[in-house]
Amino acid sequence: MPSTVIADLRSDTVTTPTPAMREAMAHAEVGDDVYGEDPTVNALQAEVARLTGHEAGLFMPSGSMTNQVGIAVHTRRGEEVICAEGSHIYEWELGMMAAFSGVVPRFVPAPLGVPSPQDVRAAVRHSVHQSPTGLISLENTHNKAGGTVIPLDVLTQIRAVADDEGLPLHLDGARVFNAAAALGVPLSEITRHFHTVSVCLSKGLGAPVGSVLVGSAEQMKQAHRYRKMLGGGMRQAGILAAAGLVALRDGPAWLAEDHRRARTLAGALVNAGYDVNLAAVQTNIIYATIPDAAARSAAWAAQGVLANALGPDSVRFVLHHQIGDDALDGAIRVLTA
Amino acid sequence: MPSTVIADLRSDTVTTPTPAMREAMAHAEVGDDVYGEDPTVNALQAEVARLTGHEAGLFMPSGSMTNQVGIAVHTRRGEEVICAEGSHIYEWELGMMAAFSGVVPRFVPAPLGVPSPQDVRAAVRHSVHQSPTGLISLENTHNKAGGTVIPLDVLTQIRAVADDEGLPLHLDGARVFNAAAALGVPLSEITRHFHTVSVCLSKGLGAPVGSVLVGSAEQMKQAHRYRKMLGGGMRQAGILAAAGLVALRDGPAWLAEDHRRARTLAGALVNAGYDVNLAAVQTNIIYATIPDAAARSAAWAAQGVLANALGPDSVRFVLHHQIGDDALDGAIRVLTA
Amino acid sequence: MPSTVIADLRSDTVTTPTPAMREAMAHAEVGDDVYGEDPTVNALQAEVARLTGHEAGLFMPSGSMTNQVGIAVHTRRGEEVICAEGSHIYEWELGMMAAFSGVVPRFVPAPLGVPSPQDVRAAVRHSVHQSPTGLISLENTHNKAGGTVIPLDVLTQIRAVADDEGLPLHLDGARVFNAAAALGVPLSEITRHFHTVSVCLSKGLGAPVGSVLVGSAEQMKQAHRYRKMLGGGMRQAGILAAAGLVALRDGPAWLAEDHRRARTLAGALVNAGYDVNLAAVQTNIIYATIPDAAARSAAWAAQGVLANALGPDSVRFVLHHQIGDDALDGAIRVLTA
Amino acid sequence: MPSTVIADLRSDTVTTPTPAMREAMAHAEVGDDVYGEDPTVNALQAEVARLTGHEAGLFMPSGSMTNQVGIAVHTRRGEEVICAEGSHIYEWELGMMAAFSGVVPRFVPAPLGVPSPQDVRAAVRHSVHQSPTGLISLENTHNKAGGTVIPLDVLTQIRAVADDEGLPLHLDGARVFNAAAALGVPLSEITRHFHTVSVCLSKGLGAPVGSVLVGSAEQMKQAHRYRKMLGGGMRQAGILAAAGLVALRDGPAWLAEDHRRARTLAGALVNAGYDVNLAAVQTNIIYATIPDAAARSAAWAAQGVLANALGPDSVRFVLHHQIGDDALDGAIRVLTA
Repeated sequence: MPSTVIADLRSDTVTTPTPAMREAMAHAEVGDDVYGEDPTVNALQAEVARLTGHEAGLFMPSGSMTNQVGIAVHTRRGEEVICAEGSHIYEWELGMMAAFSGVVPRFVPAPLGVPSPQDVRAAVRHSVHQSPTGLISLENTHNKAGGTVIPLDVLTQIRAVADDEGLPLHLDGARVFNAAAALGVPLSEITRHFHTVSVCLSKGLGAPVGSVLVGSAEQMKQAHRYRKMLGGGMRQAGILAAAGLVALRDGPAWLAEDHRRARTLAGALVNAGYDVNLAAVQTNIIYATIPDAAARSAAWAAQGVLANALGPDSVRFVLHHQIGDDALDGAIRVLTA
Repeated sequence: MPSTVIADLRSDTVTTPTPAMREAMAHAEVGDDVYGEDPTVNALQAEVARLTGHEAGLFMPSGSMTNQVGIAVHTRRGEEVICAEGSHIYEWELGMMAAFSGVVPRFVPAPLGVPSPQDVRAAVRHSVHQSPTGLISLENTHNKAGGTVIPLDVLTQIRAVADDEGLPLHLDGARVFNAAAALGVPLSEITRHFHTVSVCLSKGLGAPVGSVLVGSAEQMKQAHRYRKMLGGGMRQAGILAAAGLVALRDGPAWLAEDHRRARTLAGALVNAGYDVNLAAVQTNIIYATIPDAAARSAAWAAQGVLANALGPDSVRFVLHHQIGDDALDGAIRVLTA
Repeated sequence: MPSTVIADLRSDTVTTPTPAMREAMAHAEVGDDVYGEDPTVNALQAEVARLTGHEAGLFMPSGSMTNQVGIAVHTRRGEEVICAEGSHIYEWELGMMAAFSGVVPRFVPAPLGVPSPQDVRAAVRHSVHQSPTGLISLENTHNKAGGTVIPLDVLTQIRAVADDEGLPLHLDGARVFNAAAALGVPLSEITRHFHTVSVCLSKGLGAPVGSVLVGSAEQMKQAHRYRKMLGGGMRQAGILAAAGLVALRDGPAWLAEDHRRARTLAGALVNAGYDVNLAAVQTNIIYATIPDAAARSAAWAAQGVLANALGPDSVRFVLHHQIGDDALDGAIRVLTA
Repeated sequence: MPSTVIADLRSDTVTTPTPAMREAMAHAEVGDDVYGEDPTVNALQAEVARLTGHEAGLFMPSGSMTNQVGIAVHTRRGEEVICAEGSHIYEWELGMMAAFSGVVPRFVPAPLGVPSPQDVRAAVRHSVHQSPTGLISLENTHNKAGGTVIPLDVLTQIRAVADDEGLPLHLDGARVFNAAAALGVPLSEITRHFHTVSVCLSKGLGAPVGSVLVGSAEQMKQAHRYRKMLGGGMRQAGILAAAGLVALRDGPAWLAEDHRRARTLAGALVNAGYDVNLAAVQTNIIYATIPDAAARSAAWAAQGVLANALGPDSVRFVLHHQIGDDALDGAIRVLTA
C-alpha cells in the first residue's frame, strides 16, 4: 500500500472499528459462548433475529461460514443448489458447498443480479436420473452484478416457487442492509421471504468481524452443530458481538450516503470516458470497464486510490462509511486525471 | 413399453447381448478379481489399455464410476473441474463430483460440444481467494450436444493448455469409439491426448455392463482404491469382461453404420418438418425440436417407436447395432406419419 | 497360485459359478436396468425382499456398496455410526463412511462379535457438543470375530434400544444366510429386526457378483439415487441377477455342510497343536493362531492349500461349497503334516 | 449459574479477558486480514511460529478449526488418522474429520494419554485392501486422559516412526503450554517434533478467542485456503490477535501456579474420600470418580462451585488463572463439606 491512502475503495470490508465500537469492545460483558453464556453474543443474536423477523440467530466469524452453514442445514449430499450466475457462495467460497455439504450449483441467468422466477422454476429438478434440487439461494444485493437489488415482487414470486416445489429459500444477505436502504423499506420486508438469511456485520455496517445466520429455532439448533464442526465456536466472542451491536445501531444510517457517493463516483467515471453500466449502480458498488485494469489500478494505488481489478478490463470500486465527501473528491481527482 | 417394439431409439444402452457375447459369458474363465485373479478381467483391462495407448486399465461396473474415480484420482477437496456446459459428469452423475471428491464444476461454453482452448485457459484459476483448478475434463463425443466430435487439433491445443498450467486432462469417453469412427482414426489418436480416459463398453459397442478407466499404472493403483471405496470391486467379474472383449472385437465395425442411419433418420425428420441441427448429427445421436415432446413421444411409443423426450420440445433419438435398416424404415414410417 | 490347488480356503468369495448359474446367465432375459426394465433384476430384487420380509430390494455390484448406500440412506454428515469393533464397514470399506457419508464410527466392544444391548445404549450420544448418533449397524455373521452369530434375543434387545432412541438399525448381512443356517431359522427371523439389510450373493451362496439391499420402498428410492451416485447403476445387469437367483435357490442348502466341515477342520487344527477358539467356530470361518503366519501360509500355498494370513500369527480358513469332503481331507493332510 | 460463583472449574476456557488484554484490544492496530493486511494478526502469527520453532503460522477462531485444517492439509479422502483413544479431534470435533476431510480415525491405546511408539507403528496400514494411513495425530496435554503430558523421548520415537513410514505428524496443542510448563522446557522442545501444531490461546493463556496453526510456509498456504473454505477468514481480526499477544506474554507464567493448585485440589478430594488417579494429575485438570456425578455437581453449582460431570460417576475440575488461592480454598470447602 502507498504511504498515504486517499481512499481505499477495494471493498466495504476494509473499514476499521469506530471509536464507539472500540469502546464497546473494551467494556463488553462476556462469557464462554461455547456454553451459551456470553450475554453480548446472546443480545446480538436476538437483535438480528428481531430486525429480520426471524425466530433465532447464530453469530459466526464470517459471512462465508453463515452461508455454508445455511446450505448444510437445508441440503443432503448430492443435491443441487439453485443460484444466480456469479453468486458469492460459488465464486468466492472455494468449493465449500461441495467439500462440506456435497452439493453442486445449478445456475440460473441473472441480468443485473436478478433471476427470473420462471428460470428458477425451470431449474428445479425431479427426475430420479438427476440430482434433486435441495435449496434455492439468492444474493441481495448481488455483489458480482454490481451491488444490485432484487425487487420485492420478485422475492414474493420466487418464494412462491419455493413453496410450490417444497424447497427452502436462503438469502446471502452480506449486503442486505444496502438493499433495504436502496428500497427504503425495513430490513424485514426483504428477509421475511426467506427460511434462512446470512447477515454480515463487517461490510457496510463497519464491524470488525462477524455475521449472523437467522432462521427458526430448530434450524439454528442444527446450525449450531454445523458451526461447531466448521470450527466457528468461539469462546468470549462477546468482544466481537459488542462491536456488532454498535454496527447495527450506527451503520444503517451510513448506507444512503454511501449510495449517493457511489452515484457521484460513477458519474465522474463516465464523464472521464470510462464505461459504467449506470443501471447497475444501485447501492455502494461500481464496476467500470477500464482497459488494462491491473496496470491502471496499480498506477492509481501509487497515487493513494485503491480499487480492485477483477478482470482484464474491469475495476470494482466500493464505497463505505470511511470514505467521506472529501476523500471521494480526492479519489475522483486521481481517477479522472 | 408397447407389446411390439419396432425400434428402441431411447439410447445405445438398451441393446441386449449378442449370441457371441452370451457364448463368451457362458464359458468365461473367471477368478476373484478382488484378489486380482480374474484372467478375463485382466485381459480386458490390458486390451483397452493397448487400444487407447495407455499403461494400464481398470474395469468398473459403469461409466459414471470410471468418470468419478478419474475425478477423484486427479483432485483434492475444494478444487474446480473445468468442463463443457452440459457435461455428463455434471448433468447425469448426480452431484457425485461434490459428494465424493468435494469439487465443483467450472463451465466453459461449448458450441456443438467443443470448448475453445482460449476459454479453457481463461477458466483456469490461480487466485488464493478462489478455488484452484484441479482438472480439465472433456467429453467426446458430447452426448448433450448431440453426439458431437471434438476435432483432433482442438485436443492438441487443450492438452497444451493443460501442460502449460500443470493440470491433468480427463476424457469422458463413453462414446469415444464413435468419435474415432467419425474421424476415421485409430482410437489412440484421440485418447493419447489425455491423462485418464473413461471408455464405455455398454453403449455403441453393445456389452451388457462395464467401463474401463485407463491411465498410468500409478494412477490405476489409486483408482483401484477409489473403486473399492465406491463399491466397484466385483468378484468373478470375468463374466462381464468376457462380453466386453467380444464388444471390443465386434462393436467398432457397427458404428459407421449407426452413423449412416442417424443421418438418414435426421434427414427424414427434417423432411417431415421437424427442426434438426444437421451440423450436430455427427455420430449416432439426433436431437429434434418437436413441440409437445412428451405427448408426442408417448404417442410414438404406443406405435412401437421409443425415443426420449429430454425437454418440453426436445426429443433424442439414438441409433445402435440392434436398429438395422428394416427397423429404421419402420421407425421412419411411424415418426413421419 | 500353485499349479495344483487342493483347496482354496482364503474366502468364500473365490468360488466360480456353477453350471446351473452359467446356464442361467447364458439365457437370462435382460433389459436396461437403468430404466428399471431388466426383468431378471426385478425378479431377484423381489425375491430377496420376500425372503428377508422387507418391502423392496435393490441390486448392486458389491456388498461394500450395499453397506455404504445403507449408511448414506440413514445418516447426515457429522453423525456417528455405532458398530462393533472390527466391523467390515470400517475395517474393509476404506473409509467410505467418512468420504461419502461424512460420518465416523463409534465402536462398542463385541466379544465373539456380539455387542451387548447395554453397550449399544451407552454409546448413543445426545449432547449438542458431540456428534449425534445417526445409525446402529450390526454384522451377522461377524467376519473378523470368526463368522460368529448374534443370538436372536440380542437382536430383539438391540432393536428395542434403536426404537427407544429413535435410531435406524442396519445389518451388514454379507453372511446372514450362514447365520440363519447356524440358528436353524428362516432368514426373515433375523432380517425382520432391521430397517435395512445388505445381503450378499457372492459369498457362501456362490454367485459370481452382487449384493441386494432391502428396506422400505421409500428407502430404496433414496438408495437408488445413492447407487447411481456411486456408479452402481448397471445396464443389462440381469446377466448377473440370473446367477443370483440360482444362488438363492441352490446356495442355502450348502451352508450346513460348510459349517460341518469348518468344525472338522477346526478340530484337526487343534489336534495338530494349533490354537483355535472353538467357541467362535459357529459357521464357515476359522481363525487359528499360527506362529509365523505369513511364512506358514506361503508354505502351505506351495503345497496347494490356500489360506489368508491376517496378522503376524493369525491365519483364516473359510469353507465354501467348492470344498467337498475330499478336498477337505487333502487340505487337512497338508495343514497337519 | 448461581448468583455468586466462588469458582468456575468447568474449563480453562471460561476466563474473561484481563485488563491488559482489554487495553490491547481497544488500541489494536488493525487491517483487513482477508487481504493479509492486519499488522497485529501478522505479528501474532510470527510470534507463535517463533515460539514453536516453525516457519509460519495462521490465526483462526478456534482450536477445532486449527486441528481440522491441519488434518485437511495432510490427508486425502479415505485415509486413516492414527490417534489416541479419547482424542479431542474425534470426541469433541463432531465428525468433522469425516465430513470435511473424508477420513476415519484409527485408534491406538493410550494409558495416561500416551500412545506407545510400537502401537503407533503397528497401526500404520499399507494393504491395498485397506485405508492407507494419512496422518499421525497426538494430543499434548491429553484432555480426556486428565491433562497428561507426553514424555519427550516418546515424541522422539513417534516422530521416528512417522519418518520411517513417510507420514506427517500433527499435534493438537490446545494445552501444549501446560505440557511445556510441566516438563520445564521451552515450548519448541515439544513442538519441533511435529510437522504442524495447533496452539490455543484461549485456554490456560486466557485470551478470549483464537488458535494458531503452525507449520511450513507451503503448508500454511494450503491451510489458508482451507481456513477460507471453513469460513475462518476474518476481517479486522487484529482485535482478537492483540489479546492473543498479551496472552502469549502473560499467560505462560500462570500455568505452574495452576498446576500447583490442581495438585492441592486433587489431594483435598482424595482426603474427602473421592477416588482420583493422582498419577494423571500432571497439569491443570483433575478427573474424580464421584457417584451420582450429575446430581452432585448440580448441588455444588448451587453453592457456587462449577464443575463438569462428564459421565455417570465422573467429574472434571480445571484450574486456570482466574482461580486464585482464595477461590481455591472456598471451592475446597464446598467440595469437601
